[in-house]
Amino acid sequence: MENFFTDEYFMKKALQEAEMAFEKGEIPVGALIVIDNKIIARTHNLTEMLNDVTAHAEMQAITSAANFLGGKYLKNCTLYVTLEPCQMCAGALYWSQISKIVFGASDEQRGFEKMGTQIHPKTTIVRGVLADEAGKLMRRFFLERRKN
Amino acid sequence: MENFFTDEYFMKKALQEAEMAFEKGEIPVGALIVIDNKIIARTHNLTEMLNDVTAHAEMQAITSAANFLGGKYLKNCTLYVTLEPCQMCAGALYWSQISKIVFGASDEQRGFEKMGTQIHPKTTIVRGVLADEAGKLMRRFFLERRKN
Repeated sequence: MENFFTDEYFMKKALQEAEMAFEKGEIPVGALIVIDNKIIARTHNLTEMLNDVTAHAEMQAITSAANFLGGKYLKNCTLYVTLEPCQMCAGALYWSQISKIVFGASDEQRGFEKMGTQIHPKTTIVRGVLADEAGKLMRRFFLERRKN
Repeated sequence: MENFFTDEYFMKKALQEAEMAFEKGEIPVGALIVIDNKIIARTHNLTEMLNDVTAHAEMQAITSAANFLGGKYLKNCTLYVTLEPCQMCAGALYWSQISKIVFGASDEQRGFEKMGTQIHPKTTIVRGVLADEAGKLMRRFFLERRKN
């Protein structure tokens, strides 16, 4: 039987979150945390609305998933995020001991891989899932912002 | 005239916050954010109580100070924190463009300097202010925890 719950399946839902951020004038990044194919957190970037540099989609997702699970460690969980996490978010993911991180577009300037941020040894990384869609949304955002 | 508002003056207040964390069974780290010698955020680690790896003293201080200022950038602000920030907190401080970070004890294992986390080019770092006091509090915490 074909697996319905693929990385692409969940990344599409993270992209819907990114579009919600876009509509609010936020840099369009969306995130999901999933355990046993169940979505337990669904968030998007809110740094402008909350006036808070810590309000990245991933940070909210970590807090929300831990709240759902009643414990601070995200073992057996997967984060789906449309853009490669930054130093802050990768640092938070390190502490969470999350099992898997799946990201869409790479962030060549501020992404944790270029910045050399350390990820927990128990964490697996999957790159580039629906990266084109995520990248297009980012480019459209910055293009529209330059026009205004 | 002697300057009353020294780094030691504010770090003592951050140490009081660390002691409050200690009393709650939290890893004892306290933080303050100061602008024009005025304390605008005063926080301590709450990761256990909130079941949230993102609830470090510094993260709460950044959110709280931005809320006070009504803007997400912490220009002209100084963070006082009893322990060297981790990757996550240093990453958040990067985004905040904070002017100055003063920390007490170094964290040889998880501190941002060893981890190579990038700090904003506009940020000045001051190390080792009341480091002995902060270090003693940390050692006392882990010693008591091992006994239980």
